[in-house]
Amino acid sequence: MVGLPARGKSLIAGKALRYLAWVGIPAQIFNVGSYRRQGNPHPQAAFFDPSNKEGERLRRAAAEAAISDMLRWFKQSNGTVAILDATNSTKARRRWIHESCAAAGIETLFVESCCDDEDIIMNNILEVKTTSPDYVGQDPEVAALDFRNRIRNYEKAYETIDEAEKHYTYVKLINVGSTVIINQIKDYLSSRLVYYIQNLHIRPRSIWLSRHGESEYNLEGKIGGDASISERGEAYARALPELLRKSGVPPGAKLTIWTSTLKRTIQTARHLIAETGYDKLEWKALDELDSGVCDGLTYEQIAETYPEDFAARDEDKYNYRYRGGESYRDVVIRLEPIIMELERSENVMIVTHQAVLRCIYAYFLNTSQEQSPWMEVPLHTLIKLTPRAYGTEEQRFKADIPAVSTWRGKGTSAKHQEVPEEMKHK
Amino acid sequence: MVGLPARGKSLIAGKALRYLAWVGIPAQIFNVGSYRRQGNPHPQAAFFDPSNKEGERLRRAAAEAAISDMLRWFKQSNGTVAILDATNSTKARRRWIHESCAAAGIETLFVESCCDDEDIIMNNILEVKTTSPDYVGQDPEVAALDFRNRIRNYEKAYETIDEAEKHYTYVKLINVGSTVIINQIKDYLSSRLVYYIQNLHIRPRSIWLSRHGESEYNLEGKIGGDASISERGEAYARALPELLRKSGVPPGAKLTIWTSTLKRTIQTARHLIAETGYDKLEWKALDELDSGVCDGLTYEQIAETYPEDFAARDEDKYNYRYRGGESYRDVVIRLEPIIMELERSENVMIVTHQAVLRCIYAYFLNTSQEQSPWMEVPLHTLIKLTPRAYGTEEQRFKADIPAVSTWRGKGTSAKHQEVPEEMKHK
Repeated sequence: MVGLPARGKSLIAGKALRYLAWVGIPAQIFNVGSYRRQGNPHPQAAFFDPSNKEGERLRRAAAEAAISDMLRWFKQSNGTVAILDATNSTKARRRWIHESCAAAGIETLFVESCCDDEDIIMNNILEVKTTSPDYVGQDPEVAALDFRNRIRNYEKAYETIDEAEKHYTYVKLINVGSTVIINQIKDYLSSRLVYYIQNLHIRPRSIWLSRHGESEYNLEGKIGGDASISERGEAYARALPELLRKSGVPPGAKLTIWTSTLKRTIQTARHLIAETGYDKLEWKALDELDSGVCDGLTYEQIAETYPEDFAARDEDKYNYRYRGGESYRDVVIRLEPIIMELERSENVMIVTHQAVLRCIYAYFLNTSQEQSPWMEVPLHTLIKLTPRAYGTEEQRFKADIPAVSTWRGKGTSAKHQEVPEEMKHK
Repeated sequence: MVGLPARGKSLIAGKALRYLAWVGIPAQIFNVGSYRRQGNPHPQAAFFDPSNKEGERLRRAAAEAAISDMLRWFKQSNGTVAILDATNSTKARRRWIHESCAAAGIETLFVESCCDDEDIIMNNILEVKTTSPDYVGQDPEVAALDFRNRIRNYEKAYETIDEAEKHYTYVKLINVGSTVIINQIKDYLSSRLVYYIQNLHIRPRSIWLSRHGESEYNLEGKIGGDASISERGEAYARALPELLRKSGVPPGAKLTIWTSTLKRTIQTARHLIAETGYDKLEWKALDELDSGVCDGLTYEQIAETYPEDFAARDEDKYNYRYRGGESYRDVVIRLEPIIMELERSENVMIVTHQAVLRCIYAYFLNTSQEQSPWMEVPLHTLIKLTPRAYGTEEQRFKADIPAVSTWRGKGTSAKHQEVPEEMKHK
């Protein structure tokens, strides 16, 4: 990362890390600030003055420690992407990083965030930086003032990436992606990462997730298929506009409603679209996990007909691919364009299916690959996610309309299993 | 488009048009040069001197005619993307275009191609421009010289897109994408188009396509499934390294071999990978079109069990979606990341399946959605595609190993139908 303080570097780093974890790429952040804090937990702005020799020495030592840990991580843990989160604000510093990495056979991609929009910067200072460990227990206004002065000190020495560094691979984001400069991208992973980063925005918004209303297949305990919603599912579809309203839609906001191409999600969204006039979009990529030869069977039938598959799926549900069908891992790959588009979008409501919803949820809440396939996402419940600077806020709104449970615990093939108290989402 | 002559504008425009047609977006190119040629078929360089008032007037008239046709096309044909292919080399000209479009409710995306690499420019002049209609029947060396002078005339008045135009949506490609500047991209389609354009390169390369070797299911006339290759399929797999060599691999080139996740493509590529040591990559997106409930059936069984579906598929094969499965249109959407990555890549060999191969082929050869699902792609045949400045060169290499025909004509459900002479690929 490259950029003055309060330019959203840690925000970008955090999102990139979450994205990489979600697609299954081993990644880690090395934050130079937290190394520096080990020796100097609450420095004042003067510490960051380039003419302060002692401060300079300590900050260089912190960067060295971070880089050395980073190189060790690449070697020992087979890491793929390390994110060095620091200002890296001079050409000399970047040359040193580039050379240290090259010597270890590691390619460098510099991500610079530039911003001259004072509103964005002040917002970032107030929302994020005054809650930083550097200012724990201090008066927020004093902290904000000190931080403004710290930035001034960095500005004295700051050198933006320019022509002289055109042999580096870099991406430069100007005012949160309103202009993006991309230089010398060579490989697939960098190209995906850069496309991801250039789609990020910081306008406030929420994402609503819902499964379809209870379906005829849910009642029979069958998986897959393209059944219609049940009577109770229809009641949920009718209740959805009010449930959404109650969840808090910002005044004047125009949502877009995404569904899969399957009947049960289209039927569920139908009244909501008719009543609100919101735009709709059908995505094949939002269709339920394809259960291949098991499509249309109950778990009991699967356990009987394909006992080995049934056990193998319980053993490693994320990676198990149904014969002729998909695994959770496959679903995540086909959902990638959905995530890219979600990052670009503002308010969106997605009506989809259990496994797909789990994967989307896992991206926003950073759920592990091991846990996400077992997560409880009950029918007739609206989930509202609101991305914040550090993490995603979640609220759940339950419609007062009964539905069967479609949750299944490891090792069982029961039809409509009760979710044990300890597995319930709190 | 924005840029001096010989900067690859028409090449980018042509590829973008092909990409848009392939994903089903109505698009058209309006080439100002061809309007100008109506009045002045073989102008000399002096015609393009900014101090030549008459030339200036005629070129302005050509631009006006192109824009007026373009606006009419948007209105009358429900067009989505028009590409105005011209130098559009001054700020005044761009402002005029932007205002004319805005007045008609059309958004503008400027795509500027800049290049200061003399080798690329001279190459473009010699390969492309001397074959331009402007120089028909002229000595190539005289033509190249005249063209160089024409560029000098454009250079006198050329203004690159800069800070003063930052309210426009634009992408600036510097030296064929080695640096890319993206500004104010707002919507999904622009974001996809820009990602596509930034992945393009002009390094020479080829793409090899092959279906898997004949499979056990092919022998039985069944579709879908995950069968192994037959004995003759295995013979093809063994013959593949030699067939590839015979097709002409550039000396020292290192191919990457892509397969689907299904056994028959992995088995087919296995000997090739072992013998050459080429890198391999398995893509779920290269799996065969999912035939849903018809998976594992013969065409005869499908016609018997689902007669209405069978007829509906023949009626509109591109859009017909198997129950619980996919249509050709669905396959194209899931192949989009493959095409993006193919554009970024150099030499690639893809071992995949009939429907998927038809879709990839349709992208490169610009086959219509109506024709592509019926195209003949026989087993045990290697297709070599070599992208050129204007279009893709195709060669086919047949292995001398018999295989059943898997081609099926409209209205029939025969098991191994002979391909009629007139439907054969020439």
